[in-house]
Amino acid sequence: MKRLTGTTEEISKILYQEQLELSKENLDVDDAVRQILEDVKENGDKALKAYSEKFDKITLDNFEVGKELVDQAFEEIDAEVLEALKNAKANIESYHKQQLEKGFQDQPTEGIVRGQLIRSIERVGVYVPGGTAAYPSSVLMNVIPAKIAGVKEIIMITPPQAHFEPAILVAASLAGVDKIYQVGGAQGVAALAYGTETIPSVDKITGPGNIFVATAKKLVYGIVGIDMIAGPSEIGVIADDTANPKYVAADLLSQAEHDVRARAILVTNSAALADAVEKEIEEQLKTLPREEIARASVENNGRIIISDSVEAMFELMNQVAPEHLEIAMDNAYDYLDTIENAGSVFLGHFTSEPIGDYYAGANHILPTTSTSRFSSALGVHDFVKRIQYMQYSKIAVNAASHDITTLAYAEGLQAHARAIEVRHD
Amino acid sequence: MKRLTGTTEEISKILYQEQLELSKENLDVDDAVRQILEDVKENGDKALKAYSEKFDKITLDNFEVGKELVDQAFEEIDAEVLEALKNAKANIESYHKQQLEKGFQDQPTEGIVRGQLIRSIERVGVYVPGGTAAYPSSVLMNVIPAKIAGVKEIIMITPPQAHFEPAILVAASLAGVDKIYQVGGAQGVAALAYGTETIPSVDKITGPGNIFVATAKKLVYGIVGIDMIAGPSEIGVIADDTANPKYVAADLLSQAEHDVRARAILVTNSAALADAVEKEIEEQLKTLPREEIARASVENNGRIIISDSVEAMFELMNQVAPEHLEIAMDNAYDYLDTIENAGSVFLGHFTSEPIGDYYAGANHILPTTSTSRFSSALGVHDFVKRIQYMQYSKIAVNAASHDITTLAYAEGLQAHARAIEVRHD
Repeated sequence: MKRLTGTTEEISKILYQEQLELSKENLDVDDAVRQILEDVKENGDKALKAYSEKFDKITLDNFEVGKELVDQAFEEIDAEVLEALKNAKANIESYHKQQLEKGFQDQPTEGIVRGQLIRSIERVGVYVPGGTAAYPSSVLMNVIPAKIAGVKEIIMITPPQAHFEPAILVAASLAGVDKIYQVGGAQGVAALAYGTETIPSVDKITGPGNIFVATAKKLVYGIVGIDMIAGPSEIGVIADDTANPKYVAADLLSQAEHDVRARAILVTNSAALADAVEKEIEEQLKTLPREEIARASVENNGRIIISDSVEAMFELMNQVAPEHLEIAMDNAYDYLDTIENAGSVFLGHFTSEPIGDYYAGANHILPTTSTSRFSSALGVHDFVKRIQYMQYSKIAVNAASHDITTLAYAEGLQAHARAIEVRHD
Repeated sequence: MKRLTGTTEEISKILYQEQLELSKENLDVDDAVRQILEDVKENGDKALKAYSEKFDKITLDNFEVGKELVDQAFEEIDAEVLEALKNAKANIESYHKQQLEKGFQDQPTEGIVRGQLIRSIERVGVYVPGGTAAYPSSVLMNVIPAKIAGVKEIIMITPPQAHFEPAILVAASLAGVDKIYQVGGAQGVAALAYGTETIPSVDKITGPGNIFVATAKKLVYGIVGIDMIAGPSEIGVIADDTANPKYVAADLLSQAEHDVRARAILVTNSAALADAVEKEIEEQLKTLPREEIARASVENNGRIIISDSVEAMFELMNQVAPEHLEIAMDNAYDYLDTIENAGSVFLGHFTSEPIGDYYAGANHILPTTSTSRFSSALGVHDFVKRIQYMQYSKIAVNAASHDITTLAYAEGLQAHARAIEVRHD
């Protein structure tokens, strides 16, 4: 872990620049993806079949992953994994149900009604990566909020496989996915955006993927909605001398093992803790199966900052705006009011970040690269629309007429004024 | 107005394709904008000064539009416009206050606390176009929701002018803008995204602008949040034989006068009404100051669809997902439940769309080009973040440990499992 010194302002600037660098995708696949999108838009299933043969080396007669394969997955899945998924599901549901919004209506004066409807998005597509990046926990995190929002149809797509990871299909089924199709990459995103003979077009696409998937999502944005385009994962830990270096090190490593571009940042007002955490990281790395990835992440991107005060630690972290924020302090809860920017916050010595990744119920799809300054974890709100409405009686529009036409004329929009005047007595 | 016939499916597809065409910006200014962004990022105020000389033909010593100019605007503004702006502001405030979200917290079992904080975005930049596209009503619509959300600092930028339209500066002041800078175009967006010596960087940029502004917003998205990139404005009217053709025609024209690319769509189950509306449009066009624009819009983009039934009218409009939706029917309110996709809904014969543009209090910054399928009017929710938090006690994490580690191992993320195991007794 590299140590940084300087003012809060200086350090936060350095961290942000470094984070932007880590987030940079040097591969430019725009043109290739554009071509795939056009092809699928034009040729539908035929194009999907060709890409499946080209990229996945599988010839498909049928894209749908049917009930038989899902039933088989329930047969194959380890009983303990099934149980854990069910419990995780219950927690995710009970957390996200609290995000449900209600509409409102008021009647500011006689003859006027105003309000806001909450309507779920009609059809959502969820992308689930193939291979080792296929996380059943992410299936739950993407699908359950959509389901709670009331989305009528949830379509999951995932690259074709000789044998699907049972936990993926089981998680999809538990969470309430309506249809699963085996089609991946940019061509899968294109199918969801434009629709094909077999795959219906959706209104919004969520879920992580490689650079082809991310680029395709960016390019179809506007035709459909998309969730965020996530950068590499980050954790920021604020720790004082009450923190247990063993716990802190383990949590930093749990982030570092994701990706060589993942990043762990420790801010502490205890130099002794910083030293102890560094020793622990070295110790724990030795026996870690994913040592190579975690070591590269920690050595290249890990950062330690020693702060003068508790206030300075929080000030810095608010500027860093980390995806995950852990407060390893005895009185962590008392600092909740101080937090301005973070995706998800883990309070106290025992709230290890993986609790949130899998289990507590809050979402693990979070804003990275300081975007928690202006965006939030995936949630029920991402699957609803707010529709405004109003009704004015004849008397009400006549009463407001002078003000409205004054503004319309001031803006040079005479037809706007006339639409009001035509309703005069 | 061109008449369309066919099934709901066919017509909605045609309308959508036409709308996409209208939304296409044929000008590609990406490279030019990229260069401006880089220059401002690198050279700050110096670059802004140079672009102001180049594009606006004004040499500026000071970008800030200070208190003197705002005071002067209050002196100059027409008293009736001031009064109307104040009344509009009060309505916009009382509507948007209803959008304020509360956080939540629960304690699902002993030793576990979970919750969600609502935090306002810290600093927001609002772009206000210059010249005839400078609408004081849009200043209110952008700024008031941010203010209600609790945004700490609101920065407005607008292209330099020899003399600022008083209503713009007055609206900014009434709505609660903290600082105004006279800098426009892509260079203005760059200043807000990166900050310069005088202009502070913001966390989110909202507000409409020309193709340079829109492209700049797209390119800085991720560094800062942005609102939507709006296409040309649309209105959809559902009318039955209770509708007044004079009113309907006036409302269609109020949309058409915005822009030759604006579009008005009438869906009715009354052929007689359709004929009467067409006659009225011709009549009203004759005396309209913006006749040229409105006529081009109506003739090229205006559409009339005769439906068999009330159900078919609503089905079609839900597929069209218009920005503005007017229900010109006696019992309009009863159909509120039927509406699935629309930005803002105007119920009944007297709720002319300009009431919403200026006055009723709902926002007039709305999703265009069918994006109301997955997005919403600008509102307080666009200026807040939802921060998740959780706290587990030692007992609670031990109780959940088996499930969590089971999932972590199933996903091949051992360091995740170990971060839980290290906390075992």
